[in-house]
Amino acid sequence: MAKKVFNFGAGPAMLPEPVMQKIQEEWLDYRGMGVSVIEVSHRAKEFVAILEEAQALFRELAGLPENYRILFIHGGARMQFSAIPLNLAGRRPGKRCLYFETGNFAKLAAKDAKELCNVETAASSAGTNYDRIPDYDPAIFTDDVSYVHITGNNTIYGTRWNQFPETGEVPLIADMTSEILSRQIDYSKFGVIYAGMQKNLGPSGMAMVIIREDLLGFASAQTPILLNYTQADKDNSLTNTTNTFAIYVTKLVLEWQKAQGGVAALERRNEEKSARLYRVIDGSDFYRGVAHSAHRSIMNVSFNLAAGEELEAKFLKEAGAAGLYALKGHRNVGGIRASIYNPMPMAGVESLAEFMEEFEKKNG
Amino acid sequence: MAKKVFNFGAGPAMLPEPVMQKIQEEWLDYRGMGVSVIEVSHRAKEFVAILEEAQALFRELAGLPENYRILFIHGGARMQFSAIPLNLAGRRPGKRCLYFETGNFAKLAAKDAKELCNVETAASSAGTNYDRIPDYDPAIFTDDVSYVHITGNNTIYGTRWNQFPETGEVPLIADMTSEILSRQIDYSKFGVIYAGMQKNLGPSGMAMVIIREDLLGFASAQTPILLNYTQADKDNSLTNTTNTFAIYVTKLVLEWQKAQGGVAALERRNEEKSARLYRVIDGSDFYRGVAHSAHRSIMNVSFNLAAGEELEAKFLKEAGAAGLYALKGHRNVGGIRASIYNPMPMAGVESLAEFMEEFEKKNG
Repeated sequence: MAKKVFNFGAGPAMLPEPVMQKIQEEWLDYRGMGVSVIEVSHRAKEFVAILEEAQALFRELAGLPENYRILFIHGGARMQFSAIPLNLAGRRPGKRCLYFETGNFAKLAAKDAKELCNVETAASSAGTNYDRIPDYDPAIFTDDVSYVHITGNNTIYGTRWNQFPETGEVPLIADMTSEILSRQIDYSKFGVIYAGMQKNLGPSGMAMVIIREDLLGFASAQTPILLNYTQADKDNSLTNTTNTFAIYVTKLVLEWQKAQGGVAALERRNEEKSARLYRVIDGSDFYRGVAHSAHRSIMNVSFNLAAGEELEAKFLKEAGAAGLYALKGHRNVGGIRASIYNPMPMAGVESLAEFMEEFEKKNG
Repeated sequence: MAKKVFNFGAGPAMLPEPVMQKIQEEWLDYRGMGVSVIEVSHRAKEFVAILEEAQALFRELAGLPENYRILFIHGGARMQFSAIPLNLAGRRPGKRCLYFETGNFAKLAAKDAKELCNVETAASSAGTNYDRIPDYDPAIFTDDVSYVHITGNNTIYGTRWNQFPETGEVPLIADMTSEILSRQIDYSKFGVIYAGMQKNLGPSGMAMVIIREDLLGFASAQTPILLNYTQADKDNSLTNTTNTFAIYVTKLVLEWQKAQGGVAALERRNEEKSARLYRVIDGSDFYRGVAHSAHRSIMNVSFNLAAGEELEAKFLKEAGAAGLYALKGHRNVGGIRASIYNPMPMAGVESLAEFMEEFEKKNG
């Protein structure tokens, strides 16, 4: 019997319990084949069916318009930090690429792109330690810009874009790793959306890339073949042996999301979950939220203890003993971070909220 | 109860039964943590221990010299077809890179490198439809060559290098995807050895890269950060969220290999397994081996039926019904292919050999 634990890890994150049980049940014998799903060829009809079901489920859940393609690419979101400029900088001869600097991963995306295009900072909230989404001047989105890059939800600081920038004819590219399918969005506003799987979709090691069809065909000749979106689209993500396990798990997670009522229902639940924690933080001087209240994430709730690091260490130790796992904040900000992606049930959030209230009573 | 099946798939291939059972057993609760191993952070001490144990086990099993580093890189062997020239072509100003053309994947490795270095063909066996390893002139390994690339074992045609080329001071790079740890080799003869995991090591989606230390530091500035060997070495393969599942399974497979008696014992068994099948092929005019007998693989046994495609289709259908799964040859050569990597037990090979003898009696 497994110990009852709620896992608040930022990623690889918890997966839905019914999904984990299903994987265990069919582990040694996938649908009567006598072999495991991870022992089946990526070109076998059984696996191709899994891949195509995952694509169809995502399209349905997201309400994705028909002129967008769904690709699976090796390497997580970080690999996309290179793939995006390799595939899209060449849209315009000047290779001007605008990056919004809203946190650690936004900064890394710009850093990884530096040798592959002309990176410019659209706006930055570094001055307030990334506690918000910065203001910007829409006049910067001129026609000679290859693309504009944002990070939809900033995992470490617990901020998110409430209003996505209106970039007009310039393609908007979004890293949605930590919030994919957690809220309803209008996909037609985006050129590319990508997401590492290990938070809301599945296990680590792979990314989903959603690309508007007219943005295919701009890859530089030096693009590694497995990072070339046009090639991936042509081969339906099977240019080489793909990460079959990741796609299989993702398909199960998408089925689970559909059974939960889809994105609208998940979004409502995510609002409730995060609101429960923010109420504890706002109702006390003992806890201090990292993010400005107008820019708060519903996926990652980051906070500190006013009393400082020593009491934070005690908080983490006692939370761990109470079955509240992986609450330590990222090394860049310290403190506490509760990652509450789609699979986290309200019961887990309630346990944490009650623990926080109790801890404050004893130590406040 | 799972149907008893022997899985001869070329990859993703079968994994050892005790490994698959162990994964299932600890799936929902890794070592009392109350969470699955795929739900643990790649930076958690529990996962870092898995990664380091995998490296230590590989080093021990391979007898790897101390001046070689072990990296885990996203994307399988195909991603290395780009990573090798990105990391190593710059060793010499002319970026001359020699490729031995011994089959489909050898050709793809050269093709993927074309925009990243000056590809030259060292020798080719295309003229005999890749039924052998070609002769070559060792004088081509001159000091201005950045590297020489070979494919150790050619999965589709069922050939292998018995004697690796002596390249002197020029680094020898080998794709060992389909034979890693299946036979004893002298690693000190190689600059880089890489292997997609999905045949002898684990699940699909990732490669192990073994690199001699003095070959670090030559990556082109345009190398995507996750394909940069120097960066991977600096970060011990944790530059980003790695494919934690693949490394976990690989560690279990390496433990199993050690328990089998290590590489020497596995090599003996692989010799026996392949010899059993080659005896059936050589003892009959009914079956025809694809590979020249002097260049035969002990991992992939490819053959045709003299009577042609119609009877091959019947062979595959009846074999499948007898629990002998995934024997269809690659679309490039057709016919039958039995992939008998380390995890395939002698019992599976014996079943296939007996089936072949029986089928010949009935249809010969």
